[in-house]
Parts: sequence; C-alpha cells; structure tokens
Amino acid sequence: MKKLAVLTSGGDAPGMNAAIRAVVRRGIEQGLDVYGVYNGYEGLLEGHIEQMQLGSVGDIIHRGGTMLRTSRSERFKTEEGQQQGIEQLEKLGIEGLVVIGGDGSFQGAKKLGKKGLPVIGIPGTIDNDIAGTEYSIGFSTAVSTAVEAIDKIRDTAYSHEKTTIVEVMGRGAGDIALWAGLCAGAESILIPETPYHIEDIIERMKRGRERGKMHNIIVVAEGVCKAEEISEEIKKRIQLETRVMVLGYLQRGGNPSVYDRMIGSQMGAKAVDLLIEGQHGCMIAVTSGKVIAKSFEQAEKEKHEIDMSLYQLARSLSI
Amino acid sequence: MKKLAVLTSGGDAPGMNAAIRAVVRRGIEQGLDVYGVYNGYEGLLEGHIEQMQLGSVGDIIHRGGTMLRTSRSERFKTEEGQQQGIEQLEKLGIEGLVVIGGDGSFQGAKKLGKKGLPVIGIPGTIDNDIAGTEYSIGFSTAVSTAVEAIDKIRDTAYSHEKTTIVEVMGRGAGDIALWAGLCAGAESILIPETPYHIEDIIERMKRGRERGKMHNIIVVAEGVCKAEEISEEIKKRIQLETRVMVLGYLQRGGNPSVYDRMIGSQMGAKAVDLLIEGQHGCMIAVTSGKVIAKSFEQAEKEKHEIDMSLYQLARSLSI
Amino acid sequence: MKKLAVLTSGGDAPGMNAAIRAVVRRGIEQGLDVYGVYNGYEGLLEGHIEQMQLGSVGDIIHRGGTMLRTSRSERFKTEEGQQQGIEQLEKLGIEGLVVIGGDGSFQGAKKLGKKGLPVIGIPGTIDNDIAGTEYSIGFSTAVSTAVEAIDKIRDTAYSHEKTTIVEVMGRGAGDIALWAGLCAGAESILIPETPYHIEDIIERMKRGRERGKMHNIIVVAEGVCKAEEISEEIKKRIQLETRVMVLGYLQRGGNPSVYDRMIGSQMGAKAVDLLIEGQHGCMIAVTSGKVIAKSFEQAEKEKHEIDMSLYQLARSLSI
Amino acid sequence: MKKLAVLTSGGDAPGMNAAIRAVVRRGIEQGLDVYGVYNGYEGLLEGHIEQMQLGSVGDIIHRGGTMLRTSRSERFKTEEGQQQGIEQLEKLGIEGLVVIGGDGSFQGAKKLGKKGLPVIGIPGTIDNDIAGTEYSIGFSTAVSTAVEAIDKIRDTAYSHEKTTIVEVMGRGAGDIALWAGLCAGAESILIPETPYHIEDIIERMKRGRERGKMHNIIVVAEGVCKAEEISEEIKKRIQLETRVMVLGYLQRGGNPSVYDRMIGSQMGAKAVDLLIEGQHGCMIAVTSGKVIAKSFEQAEKEKHEIDMSLYQLARSLSI
Repeated sequence: MKKLAVLTSGGDAPGMNAAIRAVVRRGIEQGLDVYGVYNGYEGLLEGHIEQMQLGSVGDIIHRGGTMLRTSRSERFKTEEGQQQGIEQLEKLGIEGLVVIGGDGSFQGAKKLGKKGLPVIGIPGTIDNDIAGTEYSIGFSTAVSTAVEAIDKIRDTAYSHEKTTIVEVMGRGAGDIALWAGLCAGAESILIPETPYHIEDIIERMKRGRERGKMHNIIVVAEGVCKAEEISEEIKKRIQLETRVMVLGYLQRGGNPSVYDRMIGSQMGAKAVDLLIEGQHGCMIAVTSGKVIAKSFEQAEKEKHEIDMSLYQLARSLSI
Repeated sequence: MKKLAVLTSGGDAPGMNAAIRAVVRRGIEQGLDVYGVYNGYEGLLEGHIEQMQLGSVGDIIHRGGTMLRTSRSERFKTEEGQQQGIEQLEKLGIEGLVVIGGDGSFQGAKKLGKKGLPVIGIPGTIDNDIAGTEYSIGFSTAVSTAVEAIDKIRDTAYSHEKTTIVEVMGRGAGDIALWAGLCAGAESILIPETPYHIEDIIERMKRGRERGKMHNIIVVAEGVCKAEEISEEIKKRIQLETRVMVLGYLQRGGNPSVYDRMIGSQMGAKAVDLLIEGQHGCMIAVTSGKVIAKSFEQAEKEKHEIDMSLYQLARSLSI
Repeated sequence: MKKLAVLTSGGDAPGMNAAIRAVVRRGIEQGLDVYGVYNGYEGLLEGHIEQMQLGSVGDIIHRGGTMLRTSRSERFKTEEGQQQGIEQLEKLGIEGLVVIGGDGSFQGAKKLGKKGLPVIGIPGTIDNDIAGTEYSIGFSTAVSTAVEAIDKIRDTAYSHEKTTIVEVMGRGAGDIALWAGLCAGAESILIPETPYHIEDIIERMKRGRERGKMHNIIVVAEGVCKAEEISEEIKKRIQLETRVMVLGYLQRGGNPSVYDRMIGSQMGAKAVDLLIEGQHGCMIAVTSGKVIAKSFEQAEKEKHEIDMSLYQLARSLSI
Repeated sequence: MKKLAVLTSGGDAPGMNAAIRAVVRRGIEQGLDVYGVYNGYEGLLEGHIEQMQLGSVGDIIHRGGTMLRTSRSERFKTEEGQQQGIEQLEKLGIEGLVVIGGDGSFQGAKKLGKKGLPVIGIPGTIDNDIAGTEYSIGFSTAVSTAVEAIDKIRDTAYSHEKTTIVEVMGRGAGDIALWAGLCAGAESILIPETPYHIEDIIERMKRGRERGKMHNIIVVAEGVCKAEEISEEIKKRIQLETRVMVLGYLQRGGNPSVYDRMIGSQMGAKAVDLLIEGQHGCMIAVTSGKVIAKSFEQAEKEKHEIDMSLYQLARSLSI
C-alpha cells in the first residue's frame, strides 16, 4: 500500500473532519501518499481528487460538516459509475479507499470492494442508526445541539406556562429523540420504535401541572409524525395551546463535540492501520465501548437496535 | 412613594430578569418595599402579587425568560379588569408600577396611569419594534441566537453546497432579519419594510456560484412570507433544491447577552429613580445611545423605523 | 428499604445533579421516601437532611455543580464523626445511602458500610481517575470546557503567531490533558503518566513552523508542572515568547454535557435499584461501555490507568 | 483613489475580521483594488502585501482574531521604518491605508499621514480605552467571554460556598471589569479608576452571607492588582479561603458578538467611503451611538473615561 484515498458520502455529520484528518495524518506518518476525494462518490467518478498534505487538514478538527464535501450520487449506483470510479483511482495509482458515511455509502463501498479495491467504511451519521456499531460519528454533537436548543426553549416555556413539542431528526431510529429527551428532562418522548398513546402524554402533562409544573417539553422523532400533529391532538382533547419547534438542519451543524472528535480520530487512524495490514472489506465499529474492525458481512447481521432500557429510564425520571 | 410593584407582560424577552432585578434591588436600596406581580396583567387583576426581597432576584440576571412569568390578558382590556387591577394594588398600598413589555403592554400601562396610578414602562421585546426607543430589551440576545444558529447551519450548507433559507421572527419589523443577516454574512435579506425581487435573490446566488461559493444563506423575516415560499419560487425558476430552517421560539430563549443584561439593569434602576422623583406616565428609552425617560405621548409620535442604511450596507458587503 | 438518602462529596462535578435527580425520582417512583443530605459528610453529621419531592429536583438536570452542595469534612474522618452520621440517619429512619463523589468520598462510604449502613457509591469527579470504572461523572463536561477554551485561544494564537501553553486540571491522572489535547489538536501534550522531553516539544514546534504553522498549542496537566515552567524552558532554549493560560476552576463549571447527564441519570437509577434489591457495599461503574455494579473490593484492585494508545494517537495526529 | 490597503495592528480583537471584510468588499464594490497587509506594520515595511478578492474575505465574519494577523513592530517606530512602509505602498500604487488597532497603532497611522499618505484609523481593542470613541471593536465579545466564564464559575462556587476572585483584562481602563462584573452580578468590582477598600469588599461578602448567599464573585481589573493579592488580603482578615481565576488570553478569543460584527462592518465601510470622498487623517468613532468620522486631533482631546454611573449602578444592584 503506497497510496490511499478518503471520501465522505451521504448526509454530513460533525466529526467527519476529525476522521478525515486522522486518515490523512496517520497515512502520511506511515509513509503513504493520501488523497482526498471531493463531493463523495459523484466526485470520485468525475476524478475530483487531490493529494493531501499535513497542512491540508490543519485547523479542521473543530469544524462541523466535512471539508471534502459530500453528495448523493445516482450515477454511482450504476455498474458503469462504479467502474468509472475505480478507473479514476487507478489512474492515480490509489490502492485503498476509506469511505466515511452511512448505510447507503457502505453499499457503494462494498461494490467497489467486489471490484477488487481494498475498502474500509467509517460510520458517520447523526442518526446513529448504522448496523454493526454502537456509535456513529456525529450522534453526540447532534444530541448536544438538540439539548442546547431545548435548554433555551425551556426559559420561554416557563415564562408562558406553555407546553412545547420539539421535533428532532430520526426517520427510522429514535436515538436522537431518546437521548435528547432524557438529557433535557422532557416529560414525554415519542420514538418510532414503540407506539405512543396520546392519553399517556396528556396524563403526564396533567401530573406535572398538579405539582405546579406548568411548562412541559415533548420530544418527537420525525419518524413518528410531525410535531404539528401532536399539537393538534392535544388541542383537540384538552383545548390547550401548545408551541411547536422543528429543529431541522440545525442538528447537522455546529462544532463537533469532544466525543465525535475523539471517535472520529480513532476511527480514521484505525482505518489506515487496517489497510496497511492488508485488512479490508470491513467497517470500523464501536463494540463494548471499544473501536474495532468488523467485516461488512458481520455488521449487516447486527441490525441497529435502540436501547429500550433508556426509554424506560426516561419515563421513570420524568414522572 | 413607599411601595412599588413590577410586572412583565406580553411576549417574554431575555434580559427581562435583569430589569426585574434592578427594580427590586434599587427599590430596596432606596428604602422602598417592592412587590412582584406574577403572570402579567392577568396576575395583577387576580392579585397574584408577592413582596420581593434582595434574595428573591438572586441568581436570575443570567437566565432567559422572566421569573415573574407573563401572559396576554383579555380581561385586562376591559374597564372592569383595569379597575380590578388598581384595587389589588391599593389593597397592598402599592403606589407605583413598573411595566416591562411591548406596545400592547404599554397601552395597558397608560390606562392604569389615567386612573391615577403612577406608571413607568420599560421596553422589552425581541422584535425591537417599540415606538420611541432605539432599543428594546431582548433584541440583542435574539439576534445572537439567530446568528449562532446560522453559523451552525453554514457548516452543513458548505458540505452539501446547498442554499439555506432561514426564517426569523419579525412580523412588522425586519430588525432581527436585518441584523442577523448582516452579522451572519447572508447573501440576501428579506424584510417587511421593502419589497424583495426574486430575480435579485437568484442573481446574487448565481454571482456567488460564479466565484465558487456554492452555499448561500437567505434570511427572511416572518412578516415577509414563509421561508417555504421563497424555496418554492427558487425551485420553480432555477430548479435548485434549497433547505428551509424556521428558527421559531428558539429566538426567545437563551441566556441574555451582556447588552441585554446591561440595558435591563439600567432601565430597571432608572424606572425606580423616576418614580421616587415623582415622574411617571413615561417609558424608559434609549436615545442617541443613552438611557433616558420619555413621556408616552412623545414616544407615540416617534414610530419605530428600521435603519435602511444597514440594509444598504448588508447588500454592499454580500456582493 | 423504605427510606434512602443521597449526598455529594468532595470536588463538585457537572452531572452530579442528573445523578441526584435520578436517585430522587427513581426512589419515589419505587415507593420510597428519599432524603437529600446537604454539604456532604459535614452536613450528614450535622443532620442537614431534608426530604425530597419530585419537584425538588425539577429544572436541575441541565445545571452544573451540585444542588446538594458539597464539602470536605475533617470531622467525618474520625470514628466519632462517622458514628454521628449514622445516628443522624437512624433518627430519620433512613436505611440506605447513595454517595456521589471520588475516591476519598468512597473511603467514607465504606466506613459507613462497615457500621452496617447499606451504601452505594457513584463515581463523580472531573479527573476521571477513580479506580474500577472507565468513566466518572463530570469528565466529559470538563474536557468540553477545556476544548472550547482552547478553540477560543486558537484564534488569537493564530493572529499573533504565538505558542500558547494551556494548563489543565489533573494532578495524578492526565486524562483531561490527553482528551483535551487530542480533541483540540494540540501539538504537544504533557501528562503525569509519562516523562516529557523539552527537546521533543521544541522539535514539534519547529516542524510546524517549517510547514507554515506559526501558532502552537501545548497542553500540560497540572500534575506535570506549572505551564509557566514550560514557558520558561522554551524561552531559555529558543528565545521564543510564549503565552500561558491556566484554565483552573472554569473546568468544574458549565452546563453538563449530554454524556454526563445520561451517565448521571443511569447511575442514579441503578443505585436505587440495587439498594431495593438488597445489594450494597458497591459502586456503580462503567465497564466495557455498560453501567454495572462492582463491589468496592473489586474496584480497589483495578487501579485507574490512562489509555496510552490515545497518547500515541495524539502524537501521530499532530506530527 | 484607485487602490487602498488595510492592516491590523497591536493586540488582536474579535470583530477585526468583520472590519477587514467590509473594507475589502465595499472597496471592490466601489471599483477599487483593495490590498491586505499581513502582520501589521512589520509586514508593511517588509512588503507582505497581497491583493484581496471578494472571496478572500469569505467565511471570516464569524471568526475571532484577524485573518491579516498582527504584530508589534519596533522597526516601524523609526523614521526609516515608516519611510520603508510608504515605499512598499508606492511600489504597488496604493493611495490610501486603513489601520485597525488601538492608540499605539494610531500613532503609526498619524506618522504615515504626515508623510502624505491618506490614512483612516478604526478603533479595535478589547479594552475599549481608545480616546475619542465610545466603542472599540472587540469590547462586547471580550465582556461576553468574561461573563460566560463567570456564569460557569458560579455553579461550582455555589456548590462549595466559596468566594471566587476573577481577574479580567484592563491595565488602564476598568471597562471590561465593570461591564463583566455588573452583567455577571458580581458582589464587588475593582477598577483602576477608583480606589478599593478591602473592608468594603468584606462587608459586602458578610452582608450576602447574612441573607444566605455563601458564594460571592469579585471581579478585579488587572490594572488594580493581581487577583491573588485580594485573595491574600481576605484570608489575612477573615481567615476565609477564596478561589482565584485569571481569565487571561481567553478574553481575546472567541467568535465575535453580533455587536462587534455590526460595528466592525459599519466602520470598515465608512472608512472606505471617507477615503473615496477624499477625507482622511481621521478615525472612525462611535459618538452618541452613531458611527461617524473624527479627526485624530479632535479624538486626542477626548480622553477615554469610564462611565462611573455604571459603577454606582453595579454597587446599587449587588447590595
């Protein structure tokens, strides 16, 4: 292995820059030439590839987003697109590729792998919903951003004695909602993994009001329904005006948390070490709190599952 | 003057606590008894009034919202409601009232004044749209919150090369949009005070793209239209996907900025000093950068006007 | 078990409030009476104990410090002091105690345990140096605070092309220095666990300067030496003025990170569950990323050790 | 006027980037070529000058420090150094210079002006101590940073019932101490403009303790004495341990506040407009809250004076 490349793909996540920096610096430290592919798979097939120096990744560990930019590429889903990507790498003599992204990005990585390119995947997505790993880069920052927003909303909710329904990201996985809700002390948390009962939500609001707590926070994952719908349901049943806050893209932004910087750094360096050792066709994963390698096949068998004990804990602490 | 009271009314604004603290502490320092009215005018007519001590306002200067809570009261708009409010104060021997709020709250204050109660208004609203003053408590914090949010969004906008349309508060006044847009380096700013031209917005987007800037920020005041509408218009004309972010109640929350703490403190103390001197029927205002008293009559004549030179400056700096 | 109490002891750490809240709420949910002991062991022997309600711990999960306050008690180190503590608890019929604190606090807890009181320890200290657990409440927030401070310093360091030496907490353990240094991209990190070589630090500074990076960050744990001493050594050898920044108590403050809120919540609830099940004489620990119970005896055997692979990683990424 | 240049000099201050951006963009908008001088006067005489494009100042309005870097130059204090600076500008055909910095930097600017170069000064220093203007770029951010730090310290001070003495910047002027102290609710504020009495400080500590407030914040400007000295004095007199926190360079860092971004933008644009109109030999100042031009001669007559009414207000509110 003399030359390797790194790209980010799919939705951007804070901490991706730490991983890019680690790939570049560990690679150079180990005597390799390291290339950055801009704009994800789309940039790969177009040959938007540049050699990186130590200084290319200076001053980025603390910035959100991804300095290599990212995209969703339809063209790369075709056999032809993948072949074109391989050729762009061959032209530069690049013998290995690190792909930072989510499940969709790993599908692309595996296809490149089948064509003979040594590939390593690094899980990066704020949703934390990637199969085979306890943690994906960006989750901690996204939760922090959501919690900070709810901390802010609480002041004004208190002042007006209003219930606020906060909609957070998470189409298939309720992890952001569950963590943000528990850490912000929300009264109710709605996640796609388990049905909600409007009576239960209202019961909790009432219980709070009985002990003098007039302002409530309800956190709902976008995968459950729109916050607006919960607001309507509450209004219909108890004639109470609520406020709705959709956090949206805010959750993707912001300076990465220390955890995302740390995990991103560890994963990036690990990916390079594996490629040098000749290991590939695998992703970097967090398992039992440790950063390890796991084959794509193994990872696929381990569907991401939310920790329902945290859901019970949240209910228990917001009685 | 032996006893005075303070209340907050209308929308809450960060910095109101600094003003409450200043009223209470300056009052006590000057030998007065100071009372807090909870829940605005609604609490006033219900007699939700408590005597405040030095310690009652400890540890609040740095918190958002208002510790006295606030409300919008329909009952208080009636002659009967106002009379009831006066009686509640008389019952406790309270001889003066400080009202912290916006234009609507000042209408109530003036009615109490006409009934013989010495009243002082302190301008508090994040919109900065109160007649007669250059500044209202809460504006600086609201702008900071909006700018911090846009700073966060910028990272992810860069990563995806997307244009983001950010909707901020401001129904009648574009001050938040203008300040936030200028300070966040937005490419276009839409305010209710002047018409916008979609061609101009698109022209600016194109100009940025020509020099390699693929991500844009457009800030739109809610008084102009929904951010979603601008998104649709852009899509219709240049087939470009944009992202929409509605900041909403986030802008009301958060720890008050130093400026809001400072102005809140100055205004609160000034209100007490005026009541002691026997001056009333006026509001505290910022004029030429100084905190002064201004009669309600005088203030009404000075309609709030946005500083259009800032609008020109913003356009000039985002070419 | 009908009644239990909770106290915080030693240095305060962000996230202690989340643990207190969890003890109180889980306890009440499980039908217990829960008491809060104010001012740590000093308050215990003085009987500064109050029954807590659900609302007593409302609105605290997001605040730093500890609402129960804390202290270091000389009196409690005596046999007499401990007996007095036991008696205060017996007077109220309290049958179990949760102690949140560091190694010193656990010594006290074990002594109470020997006198027959069911006791559970929860590790809380920003230094993360408690034997038997991978994580102690407060560490994540302290590192975040340090990293945010270094992020700020970087701007001014760049502007002046100066090297800044940042002194962080950590007398015996370099964990804060190591995490903060790695996550802030520091060029050199000095920890008590391994000797430093001034030549190596200077070599790294020079290497950065050769590739155009004129500003450096050096992070030093207080257990190594004062930042000022490193500054002097550098000046003596290469006549370069450096800047010194001692973060100090700033690192104890601040709103708890999401991780500290989460771990605090999990540990607090777990402690109550154990007491109810009749388990005690143990601490709550994080092992392989999971929150578990571990006997004090077992914990003592597992001396806290820093992860030296992170030290190598940091060196590798700041070449 | 066809070509102008801009430099930053002296201590860096957050918001300088907004001013640089405004000079560059307004200049280009008005059809001028704009040059950036790197490293202040030192870079000027060495000819470290580059032409700026619209994109050169993209993505900097929200960053602290100064992208042009800054320095203190001994060489430029000599007649020869100044002549060399003039020649470097003449070589490139540059006909006007904008200097962003403090009093010392303006001395240099005036000397260049006497040699025939049209020069405009923009006040930039976190100390807010420049003669002739109510405001200097960077002050608002520095105060915010100090206040945020004190907000953090308050949590841990509460937990330990300790008095904390916070040393902030300000050798000759107490503005940062006064604003930070007032806005953070400090019990005592020590500024160079007025003597302090240790008895008064202790009296205030006692008064707080009597009403149950066991933790105090004392803010001291570095121009008064070291925080450590106050700590010693208190210990000597009332045997109470206090904590000391020196904020140091932290105060120079951080993202600029909205006010610094706004004032920086206004001042930068104004400087360009003046040069085009043929006005020079003046500084941009804030007077009665407005951004205006003021001749260096006029400015010198108006010594900076702290607003002692704020000092009285602070005392009044922290009784």
